[in-house]
Amino acid sequence: MSHAVSPLAPAELANLPAIAGLRIATAAAGIKYKNRTDLLMMVFDRPAAVAGVFTRSKCPSAPVDFCRANLGGGSARALVVNSGNANAFTGRRGREATAMTAEAAAKAVGCAPEEVFLASTGVIGEPLDAGRFAHLLDALAGEAGADRWREAADAIMTTDTYPKLSTRTVSIDGVEVTINGIAKGAGMIAPDMATMLSFLATDAPIAAPALQEMLRDAVEPSFNSVTVDSDTSTSDTLLFFATAAAVERGCSEISDAQDPRLDAFKAALSALLLDLARQVARDGEGARKEIQVTVEGAVSDLSAKRIALSIANSPLVKTAVAGEDANWGRVVMAVGKAGEEADRDRLAIHFGDVRVAVEGERDPAYSEEAASAVMRRPEIPIRVDLGLGDGRWTVYSCDLTKEYVAINGDYRS
Amino acid sequence: MSHAVSPLAPAELANLPAIAGLRIATAAAGIKYKNRTDLLMMVFDRPAAVAGVFTRSKCPSAPVDFCRANLGGGSARALVVNSGNANAFTGRRGREATAMTAEAAAKAVGCAPEEVFLASTGVIGEPLDAGRFAHLLDALAGEAGADRWREAADAIMTTDTYPKLSTRTVSIDGVEVTINGIAKGAGMIAPDMATMLSFLATDAPIAAPALQEMLRDAVEPSFNSVTVDSDTSTSDTLLFFATAAAVERGCSEISDAQDPRLDAFKAALSALLLDLARQVARDGEGARKEIQVTVEGAVSDLSAKRIALSIANSPLVKTAVAGEDANWGRVVMAVGKAGEEADRDRLAIHFGDVRVAVEGERDPAYSEEAASAVMRRPEIPIRVDLGLGDGRWTVYSCDLTKEYVAINGDYRS
Repeated sequence: MSHAVSPLAPAELANLPAIAGLRIATAAAGIKYKNRTDLLMMVFDRPAAVAGVFTRSKCPSAPVDFCRANLGGGSARALVVNSGNANAFTGRRGREATAMTAEAAAKAVGCAPEEVFLASTGVIGEPLDAGRFAHLLDALAGEAGADRWREAADAIMTTDTYPKLSTRTVSIDGVEVTINGIAKGAGMIAPDMATMLSFLATDAPIAAPALQEMLRDAVEPSFNSVTVDSDTSTSDTLLFFATAAAVERGCSEISDAQDPRLDAFKAALSALLLDLARQVARDGEGARKEIQVTVEGAVSDLSAKRIALSIANSPLVKTAVAGEDANWGRVVMAVGKAGEEADRDRLAIHFGDVRVAVEGERDPAYSEEAASAVMRRPEIPIRVDLGLGDGRWTVYSCDLTKEYVAINGDYRS
Repeated sequence: MSHAVSPLAPAELANLPAIAGLRIATAAAGIKYKNRTDLLMMVFDRPAAVAGVFTRSKCPSAPVDFCRANLGGGSARALVVNSGNANAFTGRRGREATAMTAEAAAKAVGCAPEEVFLASTGVIGEPLDAGRFAHLLDALAGEAGADRWREAADAIMTTDTYPKLSTRTVSIDGVEVTINGIAKGAGMIAPDMATMLSFLATDAPIAAPALQEMLRDAVEPSFNSVTVDSDTSTSDTLLFFATAAAVERGCSEISDAQDPRLDAFKAALSALLLDLARQVARDGEGARKEIQVTVEGAVSDLSAKRIALSIANSPLVKTAVAGEDANWGRVVMAVGKAGEEADRDRLAIHFGDVRVAVEGERDPAYSEEAASAVMRRPEIPIRVDLGLGDGRWTVYSCDLTKEYVAINGDYRS
C-alpha cells in the first residue's frame, strides 16, 4: 500500500476550517491496514439536512443500499466510514454489518439508525467484521472535535497517495458560510461516480431537497466527468450535509434550489467538486500526468461528453500520454469508436496550443517538436473540435503507466 | 517492434495448403519496417466471389472506404495489403493513395479497379506514400505462387509476435474443399472488428451474397467476441474470397447460405474464425494469459455478451489476471458496471472449475489455494452465472501487463 506520492499532488493541502454543528473523530481499528487510521465518524449535534448521489452499479455495496434507504428521511445525525473493506458483495452478512454499525452509531449519538449514514471502501467480497469497530463509536462520538478535517481525509484513503481536501467560503444574504469537502479515489474510478467516496458539509441552512438538486447538477461536470480506468465501483458515494448552524449568525433558511441567494453558493459548490474530482484524477493509480480532454463542436453536450470519455478511457491514448507521445492518430481512433456523430474530414485536434490535425489530416504546419514539448508537461490538454455544432464537454483523466499495472496486479496479495 | 514471442503462441504454426485459383506474392517495400516483408498481393486468376466485414468506426481508414465501395460488385481479382502505415486519417491524400494502388494492381492483373481490394495497417495519420510500392505490383502479380500462405501472414504483421494461420477442409457434396485464413492483430483490438486484418479464401463455389451472409453470422461469436484493449481500430477488415476452383472437381455452385450442403462448411468457417480470433487475443500486446469470459444465465445472449465484454475490458480484471490474483470482487464490479440486468444476490462466479462466489457472497467452500492454482495457468476461464435466464456468451481477451504499457508508450518513437 505504500506507493510514492503522485507527482501531481497539490503543493500544499487545503486547510479546512471547522463547520459549526459538525464534529469529527477517527480511529485505527485495524480493519485491514496497520499503523494508520481506518475509521471516520462525523457527528451532527442537531439533525443536518443530507443529500447524496451514488454509484449506478447494478451490484452496489451494502452501505450504498443502506444510505439510499435512509436518504428519503433527509436528516443525518452521524456518518461512519471505514477503509480497508468495501462491504460489497457480502450478501446477508453485509446487511448485518451495516445494521450493526448503524445501531452502534445511533446509540452513541442518541438518534434512530435511519439518521445514520455509512460508507465503506477497500477490497470487495470479503465479509466486513463490524465487530472490529462498532464498539469504538461510543467513545468516538464523545471525543469528536470540530477541527479534524485533515484526519478525516486521511482515514478514508485506500491506495490514494495523498488526502484530498477542498474548501470554499461564500456569502448568503451577507452571512459568510463555508463548504468543506474531502474525497478518496485512486482506482476503479469512472464516471457515474467513481470508487470514490466524498463527504461535503456546510453550515448553510439549506433544506434537503434543495441540497439534493444542487448536488445532482454540480456532480455532472465534476465527479461524473472524471475517469481513471473506466471501472465503475460498487461503492461510490457522495454525501453532502448542511448543519444550518449559520442560522445563528443571521442566515435565513433556504428551501428552493432556484433561490437567487444561492447563486454564489452553487458556483462555489461546483468549483469545490471540480477541485476534488481533479485531485482524484491526479491521484489515479500510477498517474504521472493529468489528461484534460475537451471535445467541442459536437452535435450536443452529451455527445461531446461521450466522445471525451471514449478518448479519456482509451488505453492507447493513455499509454501514449504516459510515453509523452503526441499520438493524435489514437485520438482519432477514440473519436471513431465512440459511436457518436463525427465527420472524419472536419476533425481538428490540439495538444495544448499545438494544432496537430485539421480537416481530417495532419496539420501541414504541425511541429513535432512543439507537440512533444506539450507532452512533457504534467497536464496534457487534448482538444478535439468536431466542427458540427455547439456541444462541448471536458473530462479529466490520467495516464496509464506500468505502475497502474503493478499496483493492481498485487492489490490483494 | 521486436518483442519476445508471446508465451501463448501456438506450439506449431498451421501449414496451409494451396487454394486453387489463388496466388500469393510478398515484398519488402520499406514502407516503415526494415529487413522484413510489408507488402502482400493476392491474385485471383478468375474473378472470385468476395464478402467482407469492416470496422464500425465513424472515422474509418481510406482502404476501408475503398473496399466498402467495391464490395457491392461482389467480385475480386486482386488484394493488396501493406503493413507499417494504416492510411487512416490521411484525408485527400489517403484517397489518392488507394486510387494509385488500385490502378497499379488492376493494370498488373488486367482487371478494373473495382475488382481490387485493399487493406493497410500500422500507424494512423501519417500519409501513405503508395509510390513506394505501387510499381512493384506488376512484378508481384507475375511471380505470385500458390503455396505462400505463411509468407502472406508474415507480411501483414505489425506488433504481432507470431503469424496467425488456420485451415479447415470439409466436404461439399462429396467434394473436398478448403478454407484458409490468416490474420494480424496485436493492439487496438476490440469487438466490432479489431485492429485486425484477416483474409480468408476457399476453393468452394459459393456466390458472394451467400458468402457475405455466412461471414456475418460466423464473425459474431469469433472476431466480434475478442477484445484486447477495448480500442476499436479505424482499419479493421475481414475479407473472404471464394475462387470456385472446386467446380472443376465436380462441386456444384451454391448461391443460398441456407443450403444444407453448406452445414459442414459453416461449422468449419466458424471454427476457423474462432481459431484465428483466439490467436489474435493470445497475441494481444504484452499478453501472457488468455482470458475466456463466459457469462450464462443472462436475460438474453446480447445481455450476456455485454456483461462478458465489460468483464473482459476491465483494466482491474485484466491486471488481476496478470498478477495471478483470483480477485473475483473485480468481476462483480464489472458485472455491475455493465448496466445490464443482474441480481447481486444470485451471482455465482467460477475461476476454472473453482466456484469462488455463490448467491452474492464468497463461496463458503472456496479454497484460495485451488483458485490460485487456476490463476497460474496460461488460460484463465472466468464463468459468471447470473441465474436469471438462458442468455449465454463467451468473449476472449488477454491480461493487461506492464509490457502493454511499454509497447504502447513508445510505439511511434
